[in-house]
Amino acid sequence: MRVVILGSAAGGGLPQWNCRCPICAMARSEPDRVRPRTQSSIAVSANETDWLLINASPDIRQQLFDNPQMHPQEGLRHSPIRSVLLTNGDVDHVAGLLTLREGQPYTLYATRGILDSVNANRVFDVMAEGVVARQAVAMDRRFEPLPGLSVTLFPVPGKVPLWLEDETMEIGAETETTVGALIEANGRRLAYIPGCARVTDGLRDRIAGVDALLFDGTVLHDDDMIRVGVGTKTGWRMGHVPMRGANGSIDALAGTAIGRRVFVHINNTNPVLVEGSPERADVEAAGWTVGHDGLSLAL
Amino acid sequence: MRVVILGSAAGGGLPQWNCRCPICAMARSEPDRVRPRTQSSIAVSANETDWLLINASPDIRQQLFDNPQMHPQEGLRHSPIRSVLLTNGDVDHVAGLLTLREGQPYTLYATRGILDSVNANRVFDVMAEGVVARQAVAMDRRFEPLPGLSVTLFPVPGKVPLWLEDETMEIGAETETTVGALIEANGRRLAYIPGCARVTDGLRDRIAGVDALLFDGTVLHDDDMIRVGVGTKTGWRMGHVPMRGANGSIDALAGTAIGRRVFVHINNTNPVLVEGSPERADVEAAGWTVGHDGLSLAL
Repeated sequence: MRVVILGSAAGGGLPQWNCRCPICAMARSEPDRVRPRTQSSIAVSANETDWLLINASPDIRQQLFDNPQMHPQEGLRHSPIRSVLLTNGDVDHVAGLLTLREGQPYTLYATRGILDSVNANRVFDVMAEGVVARQAVAMDRRFEPLPGLSVTLFPVPGKVPLWLEDETMEIGAETETTVGALIEANGRRLAYIPGCARVTDGLRDRIAGVDALLFDGTVLHDDDMIRVGVGTKTGWRMGHVPMRGANGSIDALAGTAIGRRVFVHINNTNPVLVEGSPERADVEAAGWTVGHDGLSLAL
Repeated sequence: MRVVILGSAAGGGLPQWNCRCPICAMARSEPDRVRPRTQSSIAVSANETDWLLINASPDIRQQLFDNPQMHPQEGLRHSPIRSVLLTNGDVDHVAGLLTLREGQPYTLYATRGILDSVNANRVFDVMAEGVVARQAVAMDRRFEPLPGLSVTLFPVPGKVPLWLEDETMEIGAETETTVGALIEANGRRLAYIPGCARVTDGLRDRIAGVDALLFDGTVLHDDDMIRVGVGTKTGWRMGHVPMRGANGSIDALAGTAIGRRVFVHINNTNPVLVEGSPERADVEAAGWTVGHDGLSLAL
């Protein structure tokens, strides 16, 4: 199985269009010190020819251009991307669907809840009926988005997308709105969980023994954004467990058997993004890789 | 007045994600011969500090990154983009609104018709109420999206966006769905018309005497896409007048007083995109510039 991280940043990307925090500023002026990153997406393949795209980021056009394996390979119109899967309905995971048009057939998979929230927006009709099939998939039911590659979705603690938030919203609920994906091919297993509000016993059981885990690296501490002064939201409020601190993911997953641990969906305020920083050294010493665009794993 | 072309390509960009037509293939392998181009958008300023963005393309994040004048200039959160204007509701002009979020205040201007079609999609609620004001503007009424810079919208022959097409659609109608913009600042005048199905007498009268015209360069001939074999749609069917051929824009505008003539919104199938091609030479000999990303005009 091959996994390519197309985009390793959280919503907004790095740099974020309107952000001048120290990390965004460095991403513009010192790209060797803070590598620019596009928004959250990966591609997975069992044969390096046909690919499953998981999450369609606003930066998808640039991401496909930057990765020659994702270029069309034959005829006048073609894409190696045969299927697309969404793990939630956040803008950083669905806006790219507006680019995946132009008469290219593929199947879009998501839970009923996520699919309904997309379908309610007519602008997504650029994915024309009869060209793009929209397929609802149940939790805990293995399906094959590509021959030889299977996926099982499972709920993780999360929340509804920002654009669907209202006063009834519950943070940390395990519903259809935020899911993890267990991907299996050629006897290898990958867990992909770009958004997760809390590490639970159930989650640890799900992922025990995987060859690789790509996990929510939005914030280092719950109050990253408040420390930097760019916002008032905690990681928890945004539906993201911190790497460090009380209930941090690094400690919570330390005892679980996992082959390779990689953080993805990293927010521009997270100091692990700075090459050579003590925070980067700390998470690496704990056995984690800080994901970057183009990082490719052979499992 | 300063005008910067942020994106000079039509919907899909150059290369388009799933296209291997000769021009898209060259954009990937021979960027000196076919310069890659992002999707349709310009920025206009009267003082080079505050900018009006006209059309928000899916590539907006990359466009703002590539143009240092569009970077945030002060404080922790900032953008030189103070106002945004839409000339139609096509995905290549509205998808970028999903990126212009993150609590950044600005005013979004469009006709009532265009604004209603955007508002009907809840996903655009990422432009939070109370942060982004959505302002409907009437045709033929001058308004000031920035101090010292005024805009007048006027209808041009067009059609509804692809995602709103139905059996009642009329091509070439002059309605609120496709507009041109006449922009004035410091005594200079710019006409911006990225989509137009036909050059009419009314249109010629509108733009006579402008210092610059940025005009719909989607197709060279009405049947560009059919010639290349990538589709069955004519320029007319897509709502775009060709540069050449019967009723082509070059001849139709030849007798109109216009300071600088620049084609924008150029589709990936248009042979004028090839540097040194006879088609490029032909339109240049006729007094037109083939727009490219980053082209900056001081009027």
